[in-house]
Amino acid sequence: MQLPDCEEILLNIEDGVLYLTLNRPQKRNAMNDKLVSEVMQTFDAIEQSRDIRAVVLRGAGGHFCAGGDISGMNKITQTPEQAKKAAWEFNRAFGRMITRVNRAPQLVITLLEGAVLGGGFGLACISDIAIADSGAKLAMPETGLGIPPAQIAPFVVMRIGLTQTRRLALLGERIGGAEAVRLGLVHYVTEGEEAMQSKLDEVLTKLRRCAPNATAITKRLLLDVASTELEALLDRASDDFSAAINSDEGRDGTLAFIEKRKPFWA
Amino acid sequence: MQLPDCEEILLNIEDGVLYLTLNRPQKRNAMNDKLVSEVMQTFDAIEQSRDIRAVVLRGAGGHFCAGGDISGMNKITQTPEQAKKAAWEFNRAFGRMITRVNRAPQLVITLLEGAVLGGGFGLACISDIAIADSGAKLAMPETGLGIPPAQIAPFVVMRIGLTQTRRLALLGERIGGAEAVRLGLVHYVTEGEEAMQSKLDEVLTKLRRCAPNATAITKRLLLDVASTELEALLDRASDDFSAAINSDEGRDGTLAFIEKRKPFWA
Amino acid sequence: MQLPDCEEILLNIEDGVLYLTLNRPQKRNAMNDKLVSEVMQTFDAIEQSRDIRAVVLRGAGGHFCAGGDISGMNKITQTPEQAKKAAWEFNRAFGRMITRVNRAPQLVITLLEGAVLGGGFGLACISDIAIADSGAKLAMPETGLGIPPAQIAPFVVMRIGLTQTRRLALLGERIGGAEAVRLGLVHYVTEGEEAMQSKLDEVLTKLRRCAPNATAITKRLLLDVASTELEALLDRASDDFSAAINSDEGRDGTLAFIEKRKPFWA
Repeated sequence: MQLPDCEEILLNIEDGVLYLTLNRPQKRNAMNDKLVSEVMQTFDAIEQSRDIRAVVLRGAGGHFCAGGDISGMNKITQTPEQAKKAAWEFNRAFGRMITRVNRAPQLVITLLEGAVLGGGFGLACISDIAIADSGAKLAMPETGLGIPPAQIAPFVVMRIGLTQTRRLALLGERIGGAEAVRLGLVHYVTEGEEAMQSKLDEVLTKLRRCAPNATAITKRLLLDVASTELEALLDRASDDFSAAINSDEGRDGTLAFIEKRKPFWA
Repeated sequence: MQLPDCEEILLNIEDGVLYLTLNRPQKRNAMNDKLVSEVMQTFDAIEQSRDIRAVVLRGAGGHFCAGGDISGMNKITQTPEQAKKAAWEFNRAFGRMITRVNRAPQLVITLLEGAVLGGGFGLACISDIAIADSGAKLAMPETGLGIPPAQIAPFVVMRIGLTQTRRLALLGERIGGAEAVRLGLVHYVTEGEEAMQSKLDEVLTKLRRCAPNATAITKRLLLDVASTELEALLDRASDDFSAAINSDEGRDGTLAFIEKRKPFWA
Repeated sequence: MQLPDCEEILLNIEDGVLYLTLNRPQKRNAMNDKLVSEVMQTFDAIEQSRDIRAVVLRGAGGHFCAGGDISGMNKITQTPEQAKKAAWEFNRAFGRMITRVNRAPQLVITLLEGAVLGGGFGLACISDIAIADSGAKLAMPETGLGIPPAQIAPFVVMRIGLTQTRRLALLGERIGGAEAVRLGLVHYVTEGEEAMQSKLDEVLTKLRRCAPNATAITKRLLLDVASTELEALLDRASDDFSAAINSDEGRDGTLAFIEKRKPFWA
């Protein structure tokens, strides 16, 4: 596995965890084409790895991500035709990226501080575990700028349901970490850097007790529920179960349970 | 734009907001065929208007709506065949009406006081923003009358999820405003008329900062998530994004954001 | 109606309620093939009965259910081929069983105490009404054993949404009764046997005010929302409504409402 060379993000692997930091602090980590492409390449690179158990996604400089960098987009356009095409591609590339991150076989954890806006809000919505600082500011400000929250709309609806999405998307309301927990947008709220780090450690400890392949298979099953007919999904789930319990992980895991010892991966 | 002449509802436009009042207070605003038809015609009439930013839906006399007026329905029927047909049409017409209100391009706000029952409960479930008085009584009493909550069933499930719908629909449980917030049925609970009015003002102020077309486009996207395949929806979302950012709204909105001034619609 | 002879579960009908007790207390009611088959047969047997209004599902000895009995499964297998096939069948049979219980025309109530794990967690997720003791321990520990929560995955997602399922399935987190209410997994939390019993009585009292056929029809409608196109479902809902209001239940129920008396079933 070879991580890509990146300019807009920082990558660091430690103890089976890939720390991915959006690194445009002067723009509150607003995403340009390059950043989006680098995140995409990174998740492509780790796709097959089971040694990397988790990806921790955060922003540099106290903000998670202020959304798409629309200032950059306007510069590159010329004719109306070209402008429309560039806008389409810029937007769709971001959607391809969050679709990919959403389906990563590893556990994706977001650490949400400061601005969590627009596309950054969308990134929060596709993480397996989201931890928000109580002072984080989460919002979908798009309609206030005359544009729709286009690529993130389905992910927000799948995250917090249609009812709360209507409120947040149509009024541009800004919420904090505690409200984000109440709405089911994030899983935990913490106060300050130290508490966030300690919650992250707790999450990683729990994850390490779970088997890598079983985690990847389970995540895929969960994500397919919305788009798969029930009986077909249950048949496939039995394929997965049968293969897993007869694999190294399943054999050692069930035996370890009976023998009251740790399995080999823990 | 020409609003229809109505007998069962009151219509009043003020400052870009259409106030629609269900006006059968002697029946706690239970809906008959005529009322349903008048609401339908009203939403037909405003369909293309972007000057009307919001519809505020409430009931006259301290109650929101006690549901379908079943007393009226029985009178018009004769043979068993006719009775069945009339019941079918009465029920389905209501379903067409809430389907239409659900998809209105404007922001639909419900103010929920007193009885919010059956079809009235269904109306609450398709509003973009629902504000409930703490003393409101929300319930689906249908099965206690030997009938199913037929047309509202899908909208309730989409509103609060299957789990809570099972409880409310199968036990006929009555809940208040605070519990309605907890279940995600409404967005805000207020105490008394003045507090409700002030919350409404706050919502309208936030709405006015958002662009009319972007609001309509966004709402359509959110409502299509449940029925559209993800990749197809994301492609269409990019069409919407590209058109919006190259429209008057999008051009002025993004520029206003950079120049830190208000856009033309605000 | 003839209930099956059972060894792994206890059956008792009282006052229109079927009490079904998982009865393998030495295994914390972990489910083997026989138990799964007996539950299936029981729900087959009562399918057409409208005299039985509810099924109360609980476990013997202070635990609800610790999941699938994997110890039993390993014994019966021989060649790798046979092992895979046996695992597939064991898993899929459980899925068929919860699919069936999910769609029972009666109200299904689970009383959750002690261990509510894996398949037991899945059973909780398909009950119409779930009452949890504050000290109950609910979790999906599967990935810690190297296997996916296969058959229960879709039912958990439909129960509590994708976001919370990611957390519980991918970290194996254990939650108590109060947290289960907060996540919308159960409807009520109670403290101690007496409080649970009294909440159950309250639920049954409410249920008895609702008409048996209307309950069955309503439940089917709710369960079909996820898999049926909206307009088709609304058409069918009108069929159901029209038939119900012209049935004995609907005629007496609406008349009783107008006459302010109890309908015949109450």
